[in-house]
This record gives sequence, structure tokens and C-alpha cells, in this order.
Amino acid sequence: MLIVKVVKPLVSTNRIPDFEHKHLQVVLDGSTKKVAVDAVGAKPGDWVICVSSSAAREAAGSKSYPSDLTIVGIIDHWKPDPPKTSAPSPSPSSSKPAGGKAS
Amino acid sequence: MLIVKVVKPLVSTNRIPDFEHKHLQVVLDGSTKKVAVDAVGAKPGDWVICVSSSAAREAAGSKSYPSDLTIVGIIDHWKPDPPKTSAPSPSPSSSKPAGGKAS
Amino acid sequence: MLIVKVVKPLVSTNRIPDFEHKHLQVVLDGSTKKVAVDAVGAKPGDWVICVSSSAAREAAGSKSYPSDLTIVGIIDHWKPDPPKTSAPSPSPSSSKPAGGKAS
Amino acid sequence: MLIVKVVKPLVSTNRIPDFEHKHLQVVLDGSTKKVAVDAVGAKPGDWVICVSSSAAREAAGSKSYPSDLTIVGIIDHWKPDPPKTSAPSPSPSSSKPAGGKAS
Amino acid sequence: MLIVKVVKPLVSTNRIPDFEHKHLQVVLDGSTKKVAVDAVGAKPGDWVICVSSSAAREAAGSKSYPSDLTIVGIIDHWKPDPPKTSAPSPSPSSSKPAGGKAS
Repeated sequence: MLIVKVVKPLVSTNRIPDFEHKHLQVVLDGSTKKVAVDAVGAKPGDWVICVSSSAAREAAGSKSYPSDLTIVGIIDHWKPDPPKTSAPSPSPSSSKPAGGKAS
Repeated sequence: MLIVKVVKPLVSTNRIPDFEHKHLQVVLDGSTKKVAVDAVGAKPGDWVICVSSSAAREAAGSKSYPSDLTIVGIIDHWKPDPPKTSAPSPSPSSSKPAGGKAS
Repeated sequence: MLIVKVVKPLVSTNRIPDFEHKHLQVVLDGSTKKVAVDAVGAKPGDWVICVSSSAAREAAGSKSYPSDLTIVGIIDHWKPDPPKTSAPSPSPSSSKPAGGKAS
Repeated sequence: MLIVKVVKPLVSTNRIPDFEHKHLQVVLDGSTKKVAVDAVGAKPGDWVICVSSSAAREAAGSKSYPSDLTIVGIIDHWKPDPPKTSAPSPSPSSSKPAGGKAS
Repeated sequence: MLIVKVVKPLVSTNRIPDFEHKHLQVVLDGSTKKVAVDAVGAKPGDWVICVSSSAAREAAGSKSYPSDLTIVGIIDHWKPDPPKTSAPSPSPSSSKPAGGKAS
């Protein structure tokens, strides 16, 4: 599964009916924006787990659902790696990962 | 799902009969051109959502349809990221997506 | 689907029997050589459409055919993008894309 | 299958119920962190084999399990390649690959 | 299908039972090491064809076999491309591709 960040909901009025009422979210996978079906109710800024491949279909609700990327969990605490292409910033310490209870 | 831009229809006279009458579109995924089956009637210049993997088959109409990339929705409003490799141009406002008739 | 160029047939005497009599072609996907099952009778130099993922199986003839990349159509006219890593050549005008009849 | 290194367990309290009680592990695939379902009981620091694609579902227990990356084996001995982007270190000899019994 | 080079067998004592008795091989895909199930009896140094995606399962023997990469053929003669990142060597002529009989 991928670890991605939720950016914002995506609006697509003209789309196939198979998507039904489910929410689509723009997510950031590294530096690439993709679209994921939201199965957990994520909010912009959340770090989430996305399942891809054929498993994304059933994770979105049924074997015939047309998803190739589905948000299946919100990560309790996540500290992203610093960007690879820029110089390391001197003070990235504002992010405070803390222990969470394991499920 | 991928966020790609429709470039133009693709003409392939010698192709397998399984594609039936459906339209094929050349799309731009980042800097790579790919071919997608069009399930929504997109036009050149449109920013669209493409589903890949096994879900592309049913999104194109049936479980046995031979697609691995299907256009499933037109994004209402999309502002692409500036190109990563070139210097930012001072006036990106010259881009005018216009409607074209699909074949 | 991918847009690739056919390089040459591939010879593999010791291979699983499931490939049957179908031809295998070496194709160039960007700068990477891959092998595709040929379902349309392509020739070296042809620009073709390749379907990947699970759809490649049925495109090659049946649901149990062990292909993950199948040539499903020959593109009537294709003008490849200039290579990204080299300096742009001053005269790329020898390639003349022309209109073709849509199927 | 991919060869990846286990980093640590992942905590996601809000996740779809289909994951059941199985453990999720953060793994390092090259320089990218991903999440895998653990089917063998791996520990942080282990080098493991991960199966992706649709095979990850059955490897995790059943055809309907929503995994696209499942840890299916712990490698007895593995000596990773030196990082590609840094200068080669003069003394990488602390890693001692030893023979193991083949299964 | 991918064109990869066999490096060596992989030893994983603690693995899921679904792999049965089949051999696992470390293969080199470009500069990345992966693991493939061997369905043809390849030897280290062989250039082979690997099928990925869902087709890797049936190529390994059955629809429920947990493989996403299976060696399905040994290439009779293969001359790899020179490495892209290093300077071209002046004498790569020791490799002699020769014609083979097509199957």
C-alpha cells in the first residue's frame, strides 16, 4: 500500500455512474497528484494508506467497483521524509510523532 | 486514478476486434503519452481521471474488455502543477484549452 | 495502453508451453526493452499500442494466457517525441504525420 | 516480488474492517516507504520478500483480502547494494553474508 | 514481459507455504534486484523473460499461486544495452548475438 497525503476533494460532474456517491480525493504520492476513492472519510492534510491494484476494487465496496486506488486507513501519526531534491532544512522539528495505540 | 490531459484521438485501423467501436484517446501522463479508452466523451485539452489496472476493464464496459486505462471522468476545474524540470515561465497564461470535435 | 515501437522478434526456445505458437516481439517502451505477445502481426519499426495488466491476457486470446503485455493495434501514423536527454536536433522535420481515416 | 526492508509496524486506528487483525508493516522499497501486510511475522530490520499485484490478496489469506503488498518470506541472508547516489564508502565490509540452508 | 538477468537463487527458510517447492531466483531488472519464481529452470547469468501482474500466477502453475513475477522463458541470445549512466566502453564486442531458430 502507498503512504500518501490527502490534498482536497475532486469535483468531476461528468463521470461514469459506477462511481456512485463515493467521494474522490486528490492525494499526493511523492510529488505526483493522483485520485483515490475514499473509504474511510479522510480530511485534507491527513496521511493515509492507499491500496492499489485489483484490491482497490473490493476495498471500495465491491468487486465491480471501478477503483484502482482506494483510501483504506488514516495513519495515526506520520512524519514524512524531508524532500529529496531540496537542501535539508535546519529545523524540521515542528512535526512531533507520538506513540499511538496499535490496533 | 491518474490525472491526465487529453491530447487527441488515436487512429489505429489494424487493431484487435475486441476494442469494438469505442474511442481511443492519446493522453499525457506527466511527460509520457499513453492511450486510453474513452468512456465519457472527452475532448482534446480536457483534464480527465483515468482508471488503470484491472478496474479499467469494467470501467470500459465489461469484464472482458481489453483496456488497462480508461477515462472515467472529466475534472471540472484543474490547475496543473508547473513543469518540474524547466525554469518557471513568467507568463503561463497563454495556454488556452479549446474544444475539439472527437472522432 | 502504452505506445511502443517494435524492435524485432524474440527467440526463446526454452519457454513454458502456455505461450503456444504466438509470436513474441521485443518492443521499446521509452528507453526500456520489453517483450510483448503480438496479436495483430506487427513488423519491426511499427509503432503499436500495447495493453498491460490483466487485460493483456484476454487480449492475447484467453483469460488464462500468461501475457502481461500484448500488442493490440498498429498506429496508422505516429510522430515520436524527440529524446528528452539529448539536445534538440535542428531538423526533426523528416517525419511527416498525416491524417488517417478513423476506424 | 520485491526485496524490501522492514522499518516498523504501522498504526492506523481508523481503517476499513477488511484488514482484520493482521499486522501492517512500514517497509522501505529502495528509498520509498510503503505499507505491507505481514503474513510471516517479520521484525524491524528484516529483509523480506513482498508480493504485489493481485497475488498479494491470496498471499494475505484470501482472494478478497484488500492487500496489494504482502510480506511472504524473510530472506535468510541479504547484503543490500550500496546506495546509488552517494559516493561508495571505503569499508562496507561489516555485512557478512553467510550460507544458509535452502528450503 | 520484462527482460531480466538471473543473479542467483534466493534462500528464504521462513516463508508462506503457498510457494511450495518452486525455486526463487534473484533477478536483475535494470539496476533493481527482484525475486522471481522460476518455471523453466534458469541458471545464474541467463537472460530470461519474466511475466508480471496477474498472469504471473498462472504462469507459475495455478491461479492461486502467489507470484507476481515468474520466469517463463530463457532467451536464446541476448545482447544487453550498455549501461546508461557510465561512459560508453570502447570495446563491448565480446558479446556475439547469433541467430537462433524461432519457436
